[in-house]
Amino acid sequence: MKVLIAIDSFKGSISSVEGSKAIELGIKDVYPDAEILKLPLADGGEGTVKTVVQATRGKLVNKEVTGPLGEKTIAAYGILADGNTAVIEVAEACGLPLVPLEKRNPLCTTTFGVGELILDAARQGCRNFVIGLGGSATNDGGIGMLQALGYRFLDSRGASIGLGAKELAHIVKIDSSQVNPLLQQCSFRVACDVNNPLYGPDGASHIFGPQKGATPEMVEELDRGLKQLAEVVSAELGVDIQNIAGTGAAGGLGAAFSGFLKAKLESGVDLVLDMLEMEKHIVGANLVITGEGRIDGQTSMGKAPMGVARLAQSRHIPVIALAGSVVEETKALHSLGMTSIFPILSSPMTLEQAMDSIATFENLRRTTNQIFRLLHAVRFKVE
Amino acid sequence: MKVLIAIDSFKGSISSVEGSKAIELGIKDVYPDAEILKLPLADGGEGTVKTVVQATRGKLVNKEVTGPLGEKTIAAYGILADGNTAVIEVAEACGLPLVPLEKRNPLCTTTFGVGELILDAARQGCRNFVIGLGGSATNDGGIGMLQALGYRFLDSRGASIGLGAKELAHIVKIDSSQVNPLLQQCSFRVACDVNNPLYGPDGASHIFGPQKGATPEMVEELDRGLKQLAEVVSAELGVDIQNIAGTGAAGGLGAAFSGFLKAKLESGVDLVLDMLEMEKHIVGANLVITGEGRIDGQTSMGKAPMGVARLAQSRHIPVIALAGSVVEETKALHSLGMTSIFPILSSPMTLEQAMDSIATFENLRRTTNQIFRLLHAVRFKVE
Repeated sequence: MKVLIAIDSFKGSISSVEGSKAIELGIKDVYPDAEILKLPLADGGEGTVKTVVQATRGKLVNKEVTGPLGEKTIAAYGILADGNTAVIEVAEACGLPLVPLEKRNPLCTTTFGVGELILDAARQGCRNFVIGLGGSATNDGGIGMLQALGYRFLDSRGASIGLGAKELAHIVKIDSSQVNPLLQQCSFRVACDVNNPLYGPDGASHIFGPQKGATPEMVEELDRGLKQLAEVVSAELGVDIQNIAGTGAAGGLGAAFSGFLKAKLESGVDLVLDMLEMEKHIVGANLVITGEGRIDGQTSMGKAPMGVARLAQSRHIPVIALAGSVVEETKALHSLGMTSIFPILSSPMTLEQAMDSIATFENLRRTTNQIFRLLHAVRFKVE
Repeated sequence: MKVLIAIDSFKGSISSVEGSKAIELGIKDVYPDAEILKLPLADGGEGTVKTVVQATRGKLVNKEVTGPLGEKTIAAYGILADGNTAVIEVAEACGLPLVPLEKRNPLCTTTFGVGELILDAARQGCRNFVIGLGGSATNDGGIGMLQALGYRFLDSRGASIGLGAKELAHIVKIDSSQVNPLLQQCSFRVACDVNNPLYGPDGASHIFGPQKGATPEMVEELDRGLKQLAEVVSAELGVDIQNIAGTGAAGGLGAAFSGFLKAKLESGVDLVLDMLEMEKHIVGANLVITGEGRIDGQTSMGKAPMGVARLAQSRHIPVIALAGSVVEETKALHSLGMTSIFPILSSPMTLEQAMDSIATFENLRRTTNQIFRLLHAVRFKVE
């Protein structure tokens, strides 16, 4: 029997690596000879690089880059075991946590550091890039990143504009002559789980600007800047970066990746499952176990365990989902591939008690053990 | 597929009848054609009569009898559908709740009403008796019950003694000539889950006397009375009522049943399972579901769900146990027949929230549903 364990972390309680160990113990107690494959999950958001690098035995690289306010900051990214694939979370170089509350002003923040990370990885030999958007403090349409890569954005006097979204309105021309030649050999896949266009009422500035510190007046200015960028890109490069779902992600970074770097914007989970080679590893599995801290009808959609379940469903493999807490109706999740969902609590307790890492480890082990005891009793034996 | 549902009540939360309905819903959603048999459980303690009468479609009889203090009281007992079997809990006629705290004195209380219930049932045609001991306010060695049935206990002057344990010391002779002749045709099975002898350091008076209101001096007097009874019974009837495990139950009522009425003292659960004809109903079941409010390594031993599990184990039928709360290690329970134990909580909550009857109904339904979804997915199909 082969069992694939692919759980997300139980946030604030236990890592996916530790949780997977607990589940394995619960199975081995009943099926000591089971082939058990553990692939910790991430969903393209925070922690994805670390999880993927660990799971695929790649390496983490720390690099000093320009932070969102122009200051120096240390950003980490991953290089997978193939030596060819870099995994970058943009928040490492331009994330909101890097900007103190009182300095949050998306007119000024830049994505320049993201470009520096890309160049560093390219110089180390990487040609495939997997980028996680999300959590950025910026609204510069990605021009900072493009500036780092050698793109020049010129104003009406023919001069290069500076850094930050406040400069977008001045762009009238784009000069690609000095772009780093390595980029020609690079391809980009971008994890993007929002559908927002670049500008307009549903665009980056209106939807995400306020949480980055923009006042209503600033939102209008930011939105005009991104519109100006889209118009110049359309005129100069013949590319429409407005009407692509997701170009409004990360303050318009989605547009820069899509329009300039020919990146595909994809679901974060699918990308992660790709990097983990989930499709390869699921072959021959008789059961798949997934899970996360909290499972409900809304928040789990599109998340990592759901992606695992869909993949398993397409191969007719039953999926057991484990969760610290299961709320609301789960019918929708069943139809998307989660065969059965089991909460792991043993008795009434507070959320704090339930999130204790030792308790969670034991609850995962016990619940899995009970499930496999039952499967064994009904003679579930597959070679 | 045939599933036998035999759960105890989830005390303070949901009855076994309601809980069984929830479980049935969870199964039928997956296996609409499953044959489902619901047998609510009891363990020989409080509530057993009602549960057994309901489950077997018998009737409840209310009868005015002599209470523990000699006053009149209404006691209920059951007659099963066969019209031949009476089910009596002695606490109905001589229970501790019938005696106000300030009047508790086991030198005075009598089991007379128990005898009256037996006679009433015998007159209604019952010849088989199932008696639940436990909860009595008495320490009279069962002589009150025997007096009601026609036995006479004579003192050294040849006069009948009165009611209550204080009279035991005066017994020197037993007159059986006026015993109701119906008793000749009656047989008794007694549910008794304690092993105490009649008298001595582990006997009825020392172990259970204090909780019935006996002072240390009273305990000594009570103990001497039971010893006197045992000696007279030995001399007159040639029966040893001291050295039988359980004769010290219910203030010595166990001894009266055993020595005078030739009753077998049995485990309460086994008796209940017998009355419910569990052995007959379990035949052909592919799965058994049992459960109770709280399952742990200690308190579940000998209780009803454990009895169900043992019965299923002897027939190699997997047992799923459901519980509101599962505490401590459950390995011992597994070895006694509980294949898998699942707590039914969906998320962290207080004990009070968990015990809400609507929540418990839904948790039982959902948990069962998830289990059967998994069984279905692994192709558990038995005709």
